[in-house]
Amino acid sequence: MSGAPEGFAGRVTASFDHQAAMRTLGARIVRIAPGAVDIELPWRDDLTQQTGVLHAGIVAAILDSACGYAAMTLMPPDADVVSVEFKVNLLAPARGERVVARAKVKKAGRTLTVCDADAVAISGGEERLVASMTGTMMSVGDRG
Amino acid sequence: MSGAPEGFAGRVTASFDHQAAMRTLGARIVRIAPGAVDIELPWRDDLTQQTGVLHAGIVAAILDSACGYAAMTLMPPDADVVSVEFKVNLLAPARGERVVARAKVKKAGRTLTVCDADAVAISGGEERLVASMTGTMMSVGDRG
Amino acid sequence: MSGAPEGFAGRVTASFDHQAAMRTLGARIVRIAPGAVDIELPWRDDLTQQTGVLHAGIVAAILDSACGYAAMTLMPPDADVVSVEFKVNLLAPARGERVVARAKVKKAGRTLTVCDADAVAISGGEERLVASMTGTMMSVGDRG
Amino acid sequence: MSGAPEGFAGRVTASFDHQAAMRTLGARIVRIAPGAVDIELPWRDDLTQQTGVLHAGIVAAILDSACGYAAMTLMPPDADVVSVEFKVNLLAPARGERVVARAKVKKAGRTLTVCDADAVAISGGEERLVASMTGTMMSVGDRG
Repeated sequence: MSGAPEGFAGRVTASFDHQAAMRTLGARIVRIAPGAVDIELPWRDDLTQQTGVLHAGIVAAILDSACGYAAMTLMPPDADVVSVEFKVNLLAPARGERVVARAKVKKAGRTLTVCDADAVAISGGEERLVASMTGTMMSVGDRG
Repeated sequence: MSGAPEGFAGRVTASFDHQAAMRTLGARIVRIAPGAVDIELPWRDDLTQQTGVLHAGIVAAILDSACGYAAMTLMPPDADVVSVEFKVNLLAPARGERVVARAKVKKAGRTLTVCDADAVAISGGEERLVASMTGTMMSVGDRG
Repeated sequence: MSGAPEGFAGRVTASFDHQAAMRTLGARIVRIAPGAVDIELPWRDDLTQQTGVLHAGIVAAILDSACGYAAMTLMPPDADVVSVEFKVNLLAPARGERVVARAKVKKAGRTLTVCDADAVAISGGEERLVASMTGTMMSVGDRG
Repeated sequence: MSGAPEGFAGRVTASFDHQAAMRTLGARIVRIAPGAVDIELPWRDDLTQQTGVLHAGIVAAILDSACGYAAMTLMPPDADVVSVEFKVNLLAPARGERVVARAKVKKAGRTLTVCDADAVAISGGEERLVASMTGTMMSVGDRG
């Protein structure tokens, strides 16, 4: 994936730092590359659902942010990104020392960018695929 | 929607109380009926994304829990519910005094139940549609 | 749903008549209203899948066309519509004298319009829900 | 992807031959491997939508069959497969000498199998990504 405008990593980091929800969840960006962003969420008991695994909505939250920022890496410097829609498949119980969402751009367009992302749970150095997302992200005006 | 086994509301409430994530987000169930559950999330600045609206993943979280529990109302007493997959459309910026996710069962099956849900943002008594979900929920064994 | 520009039904009909695929399948529009379009497909043995029911992709085809044209009813006269993405849930075996896809606009926007649609199989005057779609439709330039 | 029970290719071929819809569309299987199936559709003017590209529903049809049969390669010999749900993103106009849907299993389960698939349009030996699908497939009883 080429064509990331200069300064993309700084813009992604700055925008992510304004996502209060990510801070509240304890998530952090661990990789920014042209067309690809990874977000990591260390385990927290207080983000689980009734079966003791990470709540599907929390998994969706880091997948969605990863998709949005993967899309943003390829957008013009003055563009912001919003989610149009996403689809999540829960593939295995999300439990581990941490869960990492890895998004990459599938198709970048002027207005719409489609991203794929996987979420893996990592424990003792082993990782397991727990969820996947396909999301449509939209470039919106300038960030003002 | 008929066919909710006796005691469904108590089972849904008990399970919801075990969703640590819902407590952490500050969400609560505000309606339980056969095939329908509403979950309300009062506004919190610390759950927003970079544009100051509720993070799409947080909206997905309450939509998903509402879908899961709407499905559970129609399941046998010893069944637990997990999400197989869901799809969310973000329709308008999610900002308001509170956001309410309203889920209802579209098709109940022995193993799989499909639910639709809308999320509305409410401010000053007026509500606005901000997102929708279609989700597939699965009945799993006994809750042990 | 209001705001359908004058002449919307004629434009929808004209565009549908250019969908060679619909003609090949034998589908026809049976209702056009502001924000809503129904498409009917009489039963054909040669459109089935291996279990003898209508192929899920064929069900998707009429749901998609119905969503696209429901969206078009609310678009400016010079706009054409393309599908950005759609999600289909197969809810019951699609078998009957005919299958009807009924789409309605959920949220109309300047660029993107989100539609919901149900497909029902009808036999002996009774209908049964067999599938549902949520789709994102995009307004594109003038039809030239 | 391992674990395809002996004889999987023959079972897939036999089932595909019973999909009257695939024959009507002129689609054929061009690859069967453990966890992966490709289906090819030579160009036909009579399967287009109003803009002259392949109808999105027809693209969905070959993606769906490819996903279903990719899932079936890993299922027990007496299992049949049905689609639970799928999500399609249309990424570029589907026009070419032929369109090929390439599906692979993402996660195989006892009851549910999740597949990803891409559709590419091929012309003059060059291919272009035109659509993608994520689908949930279900193993159902014996084929009797």
